[in-house]
Amino acid sequence: MNARIDWKNGMAFECENRGIKSTIDASVDHGGKNLGPTPKEIVINGMLGCTAMDVVSILSKMRQKIESFHMEAEIQKNQSPPVYFTHAHLKYFLYGEIASDKAIKAVESSLTKYCGVNYMISKVCKIEYSLHVNDKLVQQGETAFIDPMS
Amino acid sequence: MNARIDWKNGMAFECENRGIKSTIDASVDHGGKNLGPTPKEIVINGMLGCTAMDVVSILSKMRQKIESFHMEAEIQKNQSPPVYFTHAHLKYFLYGEIASDKAIKAVESSLTKYCGVNYMISKVCKIEYSLHVNDKLVQQGETAFIDPMS
Repeated sequence: MNARIDWKNGMAFECENRGIKSTIDASVDHGGKNLGPTPKEIVINGMLGCTAMDVVSILSKMRQKIESFHMEAEIQKNQSPPVYFTHAHLKYFLYGEIASDKAIKAVESSLTKYCGVNYMISKVCKIEYSLHVNDKLVQQGETAFIDPMS
Repeated sequence: MNARIDWKNGMAFECENRGIKSTIDASVDHGGKNLGPTPKEIVINGMLGCTAMDVVSILSKMRQKIESFHMEAEIQKNQSPPVYFTHAHLKYFLYGEIASDKAIKAVESSLTKYCGVNYMISKVCKIEYSLHVNDKLVQQGETAFIDPMS
């Protein structure tokens, strides 16, 4: 995989991936202008998006009908440099004609086997999750990857 | 830190960080429509952006004048799930009235002390770098973080 970023001004950069452009910036508190999410924020978006795409893919193979789906993340960081993630809570909110056991299976498959982004971050960060189907909490747990390096 | 993503359709999600919105999608090869970068691509953007912002910040404190700056990444992945980054080459291309020793100091400070995103990814991925100032290669090396966990 290849990527490129170009400095625009201040702390803003334009990113390019396969011709697809996006903008990142520091927050106003850190010398930026809020022209885009920060580098750490897009890593969180990557954590959410990687497992969310797994879940959509697995549930559609299981012929479950997702009407809507969102996820939220709460992240704690350490205080001294390098500032990294120490604890993450990933919350899945699925709505539709979805059997709870199939939703549980989809999330567990992602967080034990498939999700490469959360696998990488789990090396430094405890990643817990909760799964809600039609507003009912049906599972809580944490990542338990079968380690391909071992 | 908090973040939220909302499923739009197919594999596309809208991300929200402090009210700032961005889109991610799977590639066409993986059931998406290229409406945005993929989760793994934004993690690479985060690796590039995190160290690039360090370098801009450190060089401006050193009163160096950056005329233009871009970075490129080449990433290798493993083949079986979870697919994660195994090797990264980060390339810095700085142009302007910039002393090579100050550019080297800025990059080394980022990759030994400050850059939290590369710190996290370096737990699973060998991260090498090369630094070019006005098209002259002035340094090559790899991340060597002083580990805040030890």
